[in-house]
Order: sequence, then C-alpha cells, then structure tokens
Amino acid sequence: MFQLKTTTSIAASREFTEDRIWLNGKEDDINHPRLQSCLREIRRLARKRRNSGSEDGISRILNDKVHICSINNFPTAAGLASSAAGYACLVYSLAKLYGVEGELSEIARQGSGSACRSMYGGFVQWLMGEREDGKDSLAQQVEVETHWPELRILILVASAEKKHVGSTAGMQTSVETSPLLKFRAESVVSGRMAEMIESIRKKDFESFGQLTMKDSNQFHATCLDTFPPIFYLNQVSQQIISLVHRYNTHYGQTKVAYSFDAGPNAVIFMLEPTVNEFVEVVKRSFPPASNGDL
Amino acid sequence: MFQLKTTTSIAASREFTEDRIWLNGKEDDINHPRLQSCLREIRRLARKRRNSGSEDGISRILNDKVHICSINNFPTAAGLASSAAGYACLVYSLAKLYGVEGELSEIARQGSGSACRSMYGGFVQWLMGEREDGKDSLAQQVEVETHWPELRILILVASAEKKHVGSTAGMQTSVETSPLLKFRAESVVSGRMAEMIESIRKKDFESFGQLTMKDSNQFHATCLDTFPPIFYLNQVSQQIISLVHRYNTHYGQTKVAYSFDAGPNAVIFMLEPTVNEFVEVVKRSFPPASNGDL
Repeated sequence: MFQLKTTTSIAASREFTEDRIWLNGKEDDINHPRLQSCLREIRRLARKRRNSGSEDGISRILNDKVHICSINNFPTAAGLASSAAGYACLVYSLAKLYGVEGELSEIARQGSGSACRSMYGGFVQWLMGEREDGKDSLAQQVEVETHWPELRILILVASAEKKHVGSTAGMQTSVETSPLLKFRAESVVSGRMAEMIESIRKKDFESFGQLTMKDSNQFHATCLDTFPPIFYLNQVSQQIISLVHRYNTHYGQTKVAYSFDAGPNAVIFMLEPTVNEFVEVVKRSFPPASNGDL
Repeated sequence: MFQLKTTTSIAASREFTEDRIWLNGKEDDINHPRLQSCLREIRRLARKRRNSGSEDGISRILNDKVHICSINNFPTAAGLASSAAGYACLVYSLAKLYGVEGELSEIARQGSGSACRSMYGGFVQWLMGEREDGKDSLAQQVEVETHWPELRILILVASAEKKHVGSTAGMQTSVETSPLLKFRAESVVSGRMAEMIESIRKKDFESFGQLTMKDSNQFHATCLDTFPPIFYLNQVSQQIISLVHRYNTHYGQTKVAYSFDAGPNAVIFMLEPTVNEFVEVVKRSFPPASNGDL
C-alpha cells in the first residue's frame, strides 16, 4: 500500500524550440485542445500580472517554451481520476512557475472537469452552475483536510488496463441517451449532495458510507442505461461490492463503503480502526494469482 | 440448437396418498405456497364446474391425489423464465386433467407473475392493473403466433448456474430501494409499451430491436440501483452485448437485438435471413474452451 500521487515537473528554457509533454515517461501530444487551453489560460494570467507591473521576474520566462513531465504512481485512464490529478497538478505547477496566484480551479476544469475539485484538499463539492458557458461550474471546499482525520481511503486495482470508453465521452453519450441520467440529475443528485455534506459535517460514517455506495451504484446504473450501454464494473468489481456488503452485514453496520468512478477499480472508504482487518479480508478473498499459476 | 420447452405430466390416482411433484427428476416441495395456490384454484374451478352439472367425468378424480412431473430441456432458475414456463405448463395440464376451461392466466400468475403471459402464444403484454388485490393484473395477447413468421429467437447460455437472487425477491428489493425503478415504472414503461406494440404491429425490426435492447439495459440499470445492488449480467453477457452492437454497427442497422431477463443468459432476436451468419459470428467469438484447454 502506498499513497497515490501525481508528480509534475516543468522546465522553461529559451533553448527549447517548442512546448512538449511526457506522461509517465512517454511523449504525448502537446496540441491536445484541453492541454492547450490550460497552458494558454495560465500564460494569459501571467501576462496580465506582468503588465500590471506586480511581477518582473516572469518576463524572462514568459516567452520560453516549456517541457512538462508528469508521472502518476498509479494506473492511468483506469477510472482512478488520473486526468483530474494530472491536470490539477499541471495547473498548480504552471501557476507556480509563472507566479500566478488566485482562482485556478476554473482553469483546471478546462483540462478535466473533475480536476477543478482536485485543486483543493479535504472535502470538495463541484457546483453544477447555471450559466450556459459553464463559468459558474466551480469547485468549493466543504471541509478542510483536517476535518475527519480517522477517514481512510483504500484503492483496490481490479484492472490496470486503460478503459475502452473515456469518462468524458461516456458521460456525453449518457446525457444524450439515458432517461435515467436525466431523472438522476434533476431529481436525485441535489438532495443527496445536501445529505452527503451533512454526513461529512457530522462525521457520520454510517450515513456517509450508505450514500457513497448508493450513489456509486446509481452512477453505474445510468451507464448501463446509456445506449449503447457502458460497463465500467467488471467481475472483480462485482466481487468487491459483494465482499463489502457481506463484511458490513457481519458487523450489522456500515464499516466499509465502496465507490467506483469510470472504471473497475474500487475506492474503499473506512475509519482507521477498520483498515488492518479489512485489508486482511481483501487479501484472503483475492489471493495472489501467481501462487498457483507460476 | 433446439427448441426450449417445458414438459409436464400429471397422473391422478386413488392409490396416491399425497400430492407430489418432481422437477427435472428430483422431488420438490409440493407445499410451496405458490404451487398450492395453483392446485387449489384449478380444483376449485373443477368443483364449481362439477356442481353446475356441466361435467360428470371429473367427479371420479377430483378427490384423487396427483403426481406431477415437470421437465425443462433448458437451465432452470438461470433467468430463462423456467418458472414462467413451468407454471404455465402446470396450470394448462391441470386444467386439461380436470376439464377446466376459460381464463387460466390469472391462476398461472399466482404461480409466477410472468407465467400469466406464457398462457398465450404470439406476442403478449402483461397489464399492470390498478386494483390493490392485483386481480386486474392480467396478460393480453397483442398479436397471434403467425403474425411475424420471420422473427427468430436464439438463446445464448452464458451460465447455467442457478442465480443467487431469485427474480421475485430481487424485484421486491428493487421496488423498496431503487429510485430509478420508481421513475422507470411511472414515467418510462407505458410509453415504451405503446411503442413496442406499434413496432410489433408494423413488424418494424429496427424499432423493435432498439427498444428491446434499451429496455433490457434499463431493467438491469434498476437492478444496479437496488441496494444492495443486484448483478444479473456477467462478463460473458457484457461480451455478447458488445458483439451485438459491433454486428449492427457493421451493417449500419439493427439486425440483431439482445434482451436479458433476471440472469446472464442472452435472448437474441433477429429475422430469419440473419440467423446462420450471426450464429457463425457467435461461434467464432466464443470458441469452445475445450479446444485449447484439454
């Protein structure tokens, strides 16, 4: 077990002839529109700042090209929010480089929607907003990092394979084809958000866990209602879900909760005293395949 | 490939000391409330008929105990409507034995809800009804057997295992816990029923197929939205779904449609000219495991 993280290094130099990016050691397309959008926005803010005279040092590097190097220590494009982490880290690092301060969440959102949340620590909500141009679709911190120190998150990698359907494309198809998603967005989400914020405020794990699981399941239900249907959960995900329910039933309370984003990998929530036992249960339920096979 | 069927034989004799039933060669519990309900109802109708004087021959056997033998030539309790077929066949056979005529659909419904549909041939709808006691929840034939002679149904058995969650228990949990099921029942089903009847009337396979797939997916979405979630589809089911969509995309039209009931096994609809090719495609996509493994 280790901490999941993204590390991004950026170098600016007049020797560089073009902007370039490497993801996990492999060069990637710098011309990706979402990436360009982040670069452009941060540089625009930096220029604005320079022109207002508040910063001199950055003039030197503002015309330089950059080389960006981003590394995840966890599977990329496998439903573990690697692009949210990547874009949040990129926008934060670019802002540091150019001395830009202030509201970066909106810029990160242009890289990956959910990256706007990742600019904050602690518990964060993503406000839907009402404007056509989405400019009021921002993230807001609900509670700070130190609010619920006993809460632990465990990631179970059911498959490190890249997903067949990207989350953004998948969500667009769902919006276009799923009657259940429409109902969920209009009639379920806002009530659940209020309940969730309340559970977090009260540090009520029972209610937090139940809501987390129900909402994860409902998200995947809308994926199935999408046409053609999208399956993010695989057989191992299903086994993990069943294991969590059996574990909670055994204790007669919600000690552990799962959530799955756009992929088969489980995000497991629990309180600190439960960690060791649950990890042991997972290890016994999913013994290493190599023991028998090699 | 062969025809799926249930064969039920019933013997009545004054030598028998109790009612008994064998399912697929193994004795089962005759005291099952749903089974008792069917037996009681048919015998009640038979007595009524005898008392009204319209039938004499049955007096002799009405006090006899029966031995019932029911055999499916396809997997039981694997989401292939074995109980619907079984109860429909049982009620029909009992009615024959006791000389009962008329409306048997309501009696079959007491055995298994969906058995009420199986009392008719052709295309049948199950009316929800409005009465609290469910007496107006009946099946109605939409089109006769000969209406769409080119239509073919292929069953792909993804797993012959008995399901973990029975369909009736599963549906009850869904009704209690799934907000999406409530929405589906109130706002989606009736419109789709009307569309489906229209597609069948017009023998419009494109619309029939699309609707069939979307409705199957939405049913399974509500299973996932149930708490704890119910998974009827397995990895093979998902592969079949994906294969059908690729096949249709290749032809730029809906040539094949899938539907999954409360189990992983696929019910595939197509028109006669498509059968040979699609069966070939399935065989290539799912080669027998024994070729490589043994």
